[in-house]
Amino acid sequence: MTEINIPEVVTEVRAAFERYDQGLVDNDVAVLDDSFWDSEHTLRYGVGENLYGHAQIAAFRASRTPEQHKARARQLENTRIVTFGRDFAVANTEYVVLATGQRGRQSQTWMRTPEGWKVVAAHVSLMR
Amino acid sequence: MTEINIPEVVTEVRAAFERYDQGLVDNDVAVLDDSFWDSEHTLRYGVGENLYGHAQIAAFRASRTPEQHKARARQLENTRIVTFGRDFAVANTEYVVLATGQRGRQSQTWMRTPEGWKVVAAHVSLMR
Repeated sequence: MTEINIPEVVTEVRAAFERYDQGLVDNDVAVLDDSFWDSEHTLRYGVGENLYGHAQIAAFRASRTPEQHKARARQLENTRIVTFGRDFAVANTEYVVLATGQRGRQSQTWMRTPEGWKVVAAHVSLMR
Repeated sequence: MTEINIPEVVTEVRAAFERYDQGLVDNDVAVLDDSFWDSEHTLRYGVGENLYGHAQIAAFRASRTPEQHKARARQLENTRIVTFGRDFAVANTEYVVLATGQRGRQSQTWMRTPEGWKVVAAHVSLMR
């Protein structure tokens, strides 16, 4: 049976999750790109776009203007990280867009790779 | 290194994915409940609700009326299943709501358990 939430694994994934989140705050495209699995299988459903493969995701990051970036500043709520054994995890969080009060959700599936923990699939959306 | 898309594992996960999808078509609450990991850690972000733990998810399923259910009939597009080793997978798909033409996305993270493949986290949203 897969062991759930081994403390040191949770600590690792939380660090990777927080590094990515800080990358969003800073619009640090290198950190954002590095946080995602470098594979054609990687997928990111954003609020308004469906991106297939690391190359499309990186192109999207590179295209964001500082204004678009700033408009999406947000506060996280109810963040939940669950780890499965030593190599897999999901990180889910609700958020509030500071500029508009809109509520959203961010889901990530993480995998341990030789290059560290990477997001293999992500989904971000606003509540209806 | 985690082996990606071992053919027989992909076949297993696709069968679990299709069983769940048929459960949605039929509004078969028993199949829907059985498809999700029976844990307090299980999480489902729906189009308009954030559900924490298997009990909240099951209560939501039980509360849907046939009318609500029918209004969400949909066609899947660009379904992508990726498996990681023998015990983890992600299944992502775009969809079109037949009644409205709205486009949505459904993301699931699956884990092999002694009771079969189960969804440990899911996120469903409509495009903005």
